[in-house]
Amino acid sequence: MPSDGSGRQPKYQRIAAELKAAIRSGRYGPGDRLPGENDLMAAHGVARMTARQALGVLQAEGLAEARKGAGVFVREFRLIRRRGIQRLAADVWSQGRSIWAADTEDRELVVDFLSATDEPAPSAIAVVLGLAEGARACVRRRRFLLDGKPVLLATSYLDAALTAGTAIAEPDSGPGGIYARLADLGREPVRFREEVRSRMPTPEEADRLGLVPGTPVVLVCRTAYTADGHAVEVNEMTLDASAYVLEYEFDAQ
Amino acid sequence: MPSDGSGRQPKYQRIAAELKAAIRSGRYGPGDRLPGENDLMAAHGVARMTARQALGVLQAEGLAEARKGAGVFVREFRLIRRRGIQRLAADVWSQGRSIWAADTEDRELVVDFLSATDEPAPSAIAVVLGLAEGARACVRRRRFLLDGKPVLLATSYLDAALTAGTAIAEPDSGPGGIYARLADLGREPVRFREEVRSRMPTPEEADRLGLVPGTPVVLVCRTAYTADGHAVEVNEMTLDASAYVLEYEFDAQ
Repeated sequence: MPSDGSGRQPKYQRIAAELKAAIRSGRYGPGDRLPGENDLMAAHGVARMTARQALGVLQAEGLAEARKGAGVFVREFRLIRRRGIQRLAADVWSQGRSIWAADTEDRELVVDFLSATDEPAPSAIAVVLGLAEGARACVRRRRFLLDGKPVLLATSYLDAALTAGTAIAEPDSGPGGIYARLADLGREPVRFREEVRSRMPTPEEADRLGLVPGTPVVLVCRTAYTADGHAVEVNEMTLDASAYVLEYEFDAQ
Repeated sequence: MPSDGSGRQPKYQRIAAELKAAIRSGRYGPGDRLPGENDLMAAHGVARMTARQALGVLQAEGLAEARKGAGVFVREFRLIRRRGIQRLAADVWSQGRSIWAADTEDRELVVDFLSATDEPAPSAIAVVLGLAEGARACVRRRRFLLDGKPVLLATSYLDAALTAGTAIAEPDSGPGGIYARLADLGREPVRFREEVRSRMPTPEEADRLGLVPGTPVVLVCRTAYTADGHAVEVNEMTLDASAYVLEYEFDAQ
């Protein structure tokens, strides 16, 4: 979004806007050190607090991060492009150019935490899965890292009565994962709904995702449906908002 | 997401978790006043700062808002469900229950700001639209209100060479809007890509959307494509994250 009304902007915002433009133009690339407080004070004739505020803006927006004693650096983190509708990846639409640069093609998400437990289904989940109040859920929790940094927490809920004794209730759900196992049970998901929200993280989420202060989380709640329209899985995902672009493509009408 | 590790939680977080549970359970509904600092101090035997921090958590997460001199209230704002793929709204999938309550069916987004201007295309936009460097864009800016509160800023970019002299270049683009006008020109959009991100707002965005401090924005960049795969419009939207749930539904594979 183009910034306007620059005439009325406080100085620190104008300096921040210049730094952002310099990052966008590629003058400062990922991992580069930005001008420090002393540099900005000299270049713009401003007080230390103003220079600090300007650098604070970039940090609050997730564009830069402070490293103790070393200065403020352009964040190295490359955005992950998460495609909601994979089947379209290969066709002409996906070859169009995109606003936000992102690449994961050469990188892999690594799971560093995984558990599968049997628990009472939270009541909101029970409603979606069509379970009786107090019924039990198979709960699969995972955390994903990219380049060594946690980026995604995911918790899947399924009907424990359906999954008991199957590989779905095991940490390793076997080749093809839980959707392949659901297909084995005649409950293959054929349709998905994803609901997307964003908010500031809870302290626990910030800790588990190692979030830079001022970074929101994106919440994706994905429900998987069988051909007869029943929900078989609810997956609540919590994403580091500074790490992800979600992409959805669809036809008109 | 279920909270765990409550044994190690600081007191203010435990109090905040209780208040959140009470909101979720409906004990405090939208617009209700939450217990004040004095109430929390008496009920939990904590210092004023602890009570204030607990209420601060709810405000930071967008669940509650302080009103000067009156206390802290459960936010009245009802979530807007924005369906990325409208055509599916009527079928069985949409009748499934959803995690996040939301209703807009009885409400209408009102446009309170609208402009259509001819400007140099920002370079990232020019690349997507396939315009030459320095080419001009038709830029349509709008702001949408719901229940009197700004919730969405939208800026559309089109090729000015295509739209010059048409209703697309006018504030009122006529019945059916700009997509109908593009169809008149033989450039009907038949496919869309939406890219979704989230970050903290710039000061200008926070001001234009009237955001409660600690509320992120969701950025949706929507590109509209014609049948021959050319991008005809880029629409950059900035949403009040506390007001929206984005919904996408799609088939497996």
